Amino acid sequence: MEQYFVKETIKQGLFEISDKEIYKHVATVLRHRIGDVIYLVDENSELFESTIKNIDAENKLISVETVKSDKPSTEMPIDVTIACSLSKKDKVEWITQKSTELGAKRIVFFNSKYSIMHWKSNVVEKKMLRLQEIAKNAAQQSKRRIIPEVIYLKDISELNKFTEDLKLIAYEESAKDGESSILAQSLNKPHNSVVCVFGPEGGISSDEVTDLESNGFVSIGLGPRIMRAETAPMYFLSVLSYSYELNSK
Amino acid sequence: MEQYFVKETIKQGLFEISDKEIYKHVATVLRHRIGDVIYLVDENSELFESTIKNIDAENKLISVETVKSDKPSTEMPIDVTIACSLSKKDKVEWITQKSTELGAKRIVFFNSKYSIMHWKSNVVEKKMLRLQEIAKNAAQQSKRRIIPEVIYLKDISELNKFTEDLKLIAYEESAKDGESSILAQSLNKPHNSVVCVFGPEGGISSDEVTDLESNGFVSIGLGPRIMRAETAPMYFLSVLSYSYELNSK
Repeated sequence: MEQYFVKETIKQGLFEISDKEIYKHVATVLRHRIGDVIYLVDENSELFESTIKNIDAENKLISVETVKSDKPSTEMPIDVTIACSLSKKDKVEWITQKSTELGAKRIVFFNSKYSIMHWKSNVVEKKMLRLQEIAKNAAQQSKRRIIPEVIYLKDISELNKFTEDLKLIAYEESAKDGESSILAQSLNKPHNSVVCVFGPEGGISSDEVTDLESNGFVSIGLGPRIMRAETAPMYFLSVLSYSYELNSK
Repeated sequence: MEQYFVKETIKQGLFEISDKEIYKHVATVLRHRIGDVIYLVDENSELFESTIKNIDAENKLISVETVKSDKPSTEMPIDVTIACSLSKKDKVEWITQKSTELGAKRIVFFNSKYSIMHWKSNVVEKKMLRLQEIAKNAAQQSKRRIIPEVIYLKDISELNKFTEDLKLIAYEESAKDGESSILAQSLNKPHNSVVCVFGPEGGISSDEVTDLESNGFVSIGLGPRIMRAETAPMYFLSVLSYSYELNSK
């Protein structure tokens, strides 16, 4: 049963879907009919089982009867932000899609010394709109209750302003030094929010790491194998989910 | 410093690299010179720091002086097999690459009732060669000590013959039922080997699950969000690495 995000607050009862994209998908692509059930998530992250009552083809409106769902939330109990150095278009899109599936709340892309790509200021807005759309679609598909926010930072140093409880850097040099316990130690303590920074293929420069460390970030290793820049955030998010959602402590 | 797999046993001292692909990469692509150092992994998974002593352009041979490396192994302390239903070409290739980066020892693709793709018998060999090549390249890049074996099974029922200590099915219906503790419970016990089965986008049929379960497989949930078919194995491998390589018990 598919799920859509609407921008309004839904109250139990009749609700009119005004989003033309949802109309297109429900009425034209999937050819739903009166009586079919879809799920809607409103601006308050509430999930509603919604039975189609009317399809107005002329005005592209769908009326549904909504009942609040008692399905448990699919959101992680900790707010997770991943911050990745800019990379090629397909990698950035891929990171956005997979991080959404894996439960990230915020997905940050930043410029750094060895970033594979740099975005000119006149393309940033267009790129961010596209990534935000990818996040929305992935959130709908993976049955999230929120759409992760995609953020662009002109410089890695803007991460210093981040205020998460736990601030980490996935640092290849730490992994090479055999650092293998800080992540597990950190996750064994209670936290409400975490951010982890991932460098480009060429790595974060040691100056950049030093600067982040002097602003409360801690460098961690993610195991003995070298992961590509896009694989490491997936590893991190999977581990967060396991620790907070599956691990029976 | 890049790494290559050779098929021979290396003894400390002089070694001649006869693999023409390695020659091409070292001498032509990267233009290494005498005195440069590369790493070689031999058929016994031993790593050798290898200093180039001669490059014979005519016969495409490279001679190196090898010294056994004392770098710790990058292999997981548990043998992990992932078994995925056949999917589109790019997904199958992607799973092979990422699973290699994440430490899988065997990567199995099988036909099942709802598989997105089926391979005709006359294309299997060619496809397997290509996947094995992807695994080799990813293993070199991520500094593995072995190349994961890629295996094709004509039918999901062939998994019944698998003899791993721990046999799991990532089953969407289990996740939907809120099952969230079996994986963590299982990983808290000692195991030498594990296999986990991942269904296609359409899921594994309940008949297929029942058959596997009657052969020692246990169904597990991997958290509350719906993951795409290619994302779930990455989640699993990341969790295995965390449990066995990072978690400070």
